[in-house]
Amino acid sequence: MRGFLIIGNEAFTGPFNLSDLPGAGRVDVLCRCVSQALFLSHSIRKGVEVYLLLLGKPDPPKAIRIRSDELRRMSPDERNIAGHIRKAVSFRPSGEWLEVNSGVHVSRKNLDELLSELSKSYRIYYLREDGKDIREEVSKLRDSLFVLGDHLGVKREDEEKILEFATGILSVSRLSLMADQCIAILNYELDRCDA
Amino acid sequence: MRGFLIIGNEAFTGPFNLSDLPGAGRVDVLCRCVSQALFLSHSIRKGVEVYLLLLGKPDPPKAIRIRSDELRRMSPDERNIAGHIRKAVSFRPSGEWLEVNSGVHVSRKNLDELLSELSKSYRIYYLREDGKDIREEVSKLRDSLFVLGDHLGVKREDEEKILEFATGILSVSRLSLMADQCIAILNYELDRCDA
Repeated sequence: MRGFLIIGNEAFTGPFNLSDLPGAGRVDVLCRCVSQALFLSHSIRKGVEVYLLLLGKPDPPKAIRIRSDELRRMSPDERNIAGHIRKAVSFRPSGEWLEVNSGVHVSRKNLDELLSELSKSYRIYYLREDGKDIREEVSKLRDSLFVLGDHLGVKREDEEKILEFATGILSVSRLSLMADQCIAILNYELDRCDA
Repeated sequence: MRGFLIIGNEAFTGPFNLSDLPGAGRVDVLCRCVSQALFLSHSIRKGVEVYLLLLGKPDPPKAIRIRSDELRRMSPDERNIAGHIRKAVSFRPSGEWLEVNSGVHVSRKNLDELLSELSKSYRIYYLREDGKDIREEVSKLRDSLFVLGDHLGVKREDEEKILEFATGILSVSRLSLMADQCIAILNYELDRCDA
């Protein structure tokens, strides 16, 4: 298993316009992360979970879980993925996971609740430019879930929370990359290690 | 300098609907390639050129050149990049490069003409799953331009043409990745090598 959790600091938690994803609290960033995490050319990876934590208006927090092994009818373009996200945030969920499409679930969880749940199944790693070089560490990783911020990064108090649960801090580049690029690189390094 | 050439086998060469990029001959694939090639978090890379060869209806071929060092007003989401592509294909260019926005040019060139021009400035590498491992080769690369197919790959006759100009065939993964993922990985390996 591999997991990715992306924090959408301002990502809308209610209806938004599919023709203005940047204006929906940068839902476009989350869509690209999902695309990079789940898709291969003409197929979907096995055993990958993506968690999106949406913290924007009007009804935060909402968490979305996408399980590659159960996923149907998603394609790698931003608008298609955004359609799935929009449907998920149209619900007002409880703290339990509610399936809104095959492989797509939504729940009412804050960062603490989400990390607490994920830490039962995964070893959690926080991605930060000054972390340990992924290439040195990748062979030691098993059942890892990587936590990344969106274009705004991760707020100080959220970072403190993540570090309570994290096994370590990893870096994929000294350059400041976009979150979706970090995910593409993590998959690449993990694939090489598996091969 | 780094360059990427992506062949859009069916990418529309006339007006298309920004709300249906997959239906425009998979312009979404080209947009994601541009995003991965040019953007960092909150900035644009220096010294990168992206070439898109659009071969779809109604007026093929059209080539688009995007130069990172001259680029203005582009953001990394698919719809924004697609807007630039749509503007470029609204022109009926000659064989010369015509600037349609700062850093974005269009011309009437087929694959042979484009490779002939690019081979004066770049060493050309073809990306294919069975090529030499990028990690073994990256330290030898200088002023490289990488040629990739879209979701349909590269047609046999186009491949023969590319190989006439190519210095070598490289692979980033034994998995069949999407073109934009290959670009993210190429940038990553080149960045590590530069560091």
